[in-house]
Amino acid sequence: MGKTTDQLISLAKEVSSNPVPRELDMLLTTGEQISAALLSMALNEINIKAISLNGFQAGIVTTPDFNSARIISIDKDKILNLLDENDAIVITGFQGVTEENELTTLGRGGSDTSAVALAAHLGFDVEIYSDVAGIYTTDPKLHPNAKKIKYISYDEMLELAGSGAKVLHSRSVEIAKKYNIKIYCASTFSNEEGSYVVNEELIIESPVVSGLSVMDNQVQVTIKQLPLDYTLVHSIFEKIANSGFNVDMISIINYENSLAVSFTVIQEQKHEIIEMLHNTLKELDDYHIEYHKGFSKISIVGIGMKSASGVAARFFNALKDIPIRLVTTSEIKISALIENENKQKVVDALAKEFDL
Amino acid sequence: MGKTTDQLISLAKEVSSNPVPRELDMLLTTGEQISAALLSMALNEINIKAISLNGFQAGIVTTPDFNSARIISIDKDKILNLLDENDAIVITGFQGVTEENELTTLGRGGSDTSAVALAAHLGFDVEIYSDVAGIYTTDPKLHPNAKKIKYISYDEMLELAGSGAKVLHSRSVEIAKKYNIKIYCASTFSNEEGSYVVNEELIIESPVVSGLSVMDNQVQVTIKQLPLDYTLVHSIFEKIANSGFNVDMISIINYENSLAVSFTVIQEQKHEIIEMLHNTLKELDDYHIEYHKGFSKISIVGIGMKSASGVAARFFNALKDIPIRLVTTSEIKISALIENENKQKVVDALAKEFDL
Repeated sequence: MGKTTDQLISLAKEVSSNPVPRELDMLLTTGEQISAALLSMALNEINIKAISLNGFQAGIVTTPDFNSARIISIDKDKILNLLDENDAIVITGFQGVTEENELTTLGRGGSDTSAVALAAHLGFDVEIYSDVAGIYTTDPKLHPNAKKIKYISYDEMLELAGSGAKVLHSRSVEIAKKYNIKIYCASTFSNEEGSYVVNEELIIESPVVSGLSVMDNQVQVTIKQLPLDYTLVHSIFEKIANSGFNVDMISIINYENSLAVSFTVIQEQKHEIIEMLHNTLKELDDYHIEYHKGFSKISIVGIGMKSASGVAARFFNALKDIPIRLVTTSEIKISALIENENKQKVVDALAKEFDL
Repeated sequence: MGKTTDQLISLAKEVSSNPVPRELDMLLTTGEQISAALLSMALNEINIKAISLNGFQAGIVTTPDFNSARIISIDKDKILNLLDENDAIVITGFQGVTEENELTTLGRGGSDTSAVALAAHLGFDVEIYSDVAGIYTTDPKLHPNAKKIKYISYDEMLELAGSGAKVLHSRSVEIAKKYNIKIYCASTFSNEEGSYVVNEELIIESPVVSGLSVMDNQVQVTIKQLPLDYTLVHSIFEKIANSGFNVDMISIINYENSLAVSFTVIQEQKHEIIEMLHNTLKELDDYHIEYHKGFSKISIVGIGMKSASGVAARFFNALKDIPIRLVTTSEIKISALIENENKQKVVDALAKEFDL
């Protein structure tokens, strides 16, 4: 049933160029209800007494933000009572209901988020089965020698998910971290052992770098010749954030009595963000916006970085022949923006340097 | 979206030979939710402010009979308030929710039933648009000269629907009759005027025969050599009714100190009903069950029959060369069971005789 949501969205696009968000959620919530009902039937067929519940029936109350709702509460008692009467409960992910009984969806990563939120409310751990056999040091499609990670901390997983790893969505990891819920990720199609996302304290000794992630389709946007006015810069980023764009790798440089601001954005949002910038800056006498596409962001992540020294030096050394356009670092992550054509070379060099 | 329910049922059959009724309703309710959301999006696209409501949101409370629920109540105030705030409300048909928040479907004819029940509760008339341009004196596919009926009474429509006409389901007509709701049936695809189903008193003069209907796939079942015990006959029909079979054209004959019972049933139910009869009768020393398939039931319907005489004579005269296996009559209907191969000849003869 993996393509159901895409099919529903294309039905919506057939009747409306810009579907009403409320109605889009009325449409999209049906996808998981179909899957949940079918799974429950299949379980009953093999004598496992199961019932399916949709978001409303499971009392998954959300904020009224159509297409990107957040879970407020879950009807724990109802679910636990039904678990007493049945062998299994199949609950639709990705959806909920507002206090006014409006149907909502949780947006990207919504199914993982539902699973972890349910586990958190019910006091269970969570197991997530997908077509990926676990969490790898890097994407096995890019680097066939990638190793499966047995234990990874919430913070490392958050950094990896936020910088391109697709196995778990950041939102689900945030909830797991907040409620200290262990997540087990494994493949639906094999019995091979998967990976655990756990509290850092449960990992006795982490490698310096746990994983590497890659995010393609990056566009670098640079605004030059801005007046030396940091409140203007602040208002630019506030507008960007309020419009729901995800900008990343922000750097601000004071350059010959003007400011230059540079950041990355995904290819799909380039047009809209450039338009918004021109609107925001139109009162200025002089400014210059340029953008370059065709970049990838490569990040290495590891809680071991906190205590190890020289990681940045090893990182730059491994990339010594590669032009780097932007660099950002956090306590447990180093990211570099590189040209897409150098991606494979960089992945291989970093995987070799950090044994990923 | 006409095939959605069939597609969902075939998905269910892929995972379970006999899907749990509750889960089947979880699955089937999604079909109309998809259509309602898409219609609402399309309306908004042309600047008609619309919202869709599923059965639960519209407060359509039903009995807990999965797959064949009956409507108990509708949240009139909520719907009327939303109608004040919007140009249009799109409500899913065919479904409801129990007092325990379980999703239900109404079974056959459920969408028409929902429409008429909503109209009844809200105090509106109802218009039903489909691929049929109205109600015809007989099926235009069988008799290309069939005429469209402008006004037909509830009772005539009930008899026509119950004897094979597919344009409206009996359940919806029953509700319309009970609440005196005018139903208008017309085509989605043309502006041609359709047909009205109304209170008999609004029709100044009806033709003697308003319409003709045909039901194919009829099997005649006859039980012979039953003891002269009408309580046994009563218990047979009680069992049949309780098992949800639709038997029709019942006739009982006292024949040489034994009873013979004959009735019709649709082909699809033949096996089950024969099995049930054998179970019911197994204590008897002597009985004989025979069945013959390949019959059609032809009915003529008209409230004018009540006052006109000689209708039956004209009916039998028109069919004088055709073997008739069973006949039943009501105040406004005459039905005959004939061999399928004679169907066209009978339809043409009756259409000619009664100007249909």
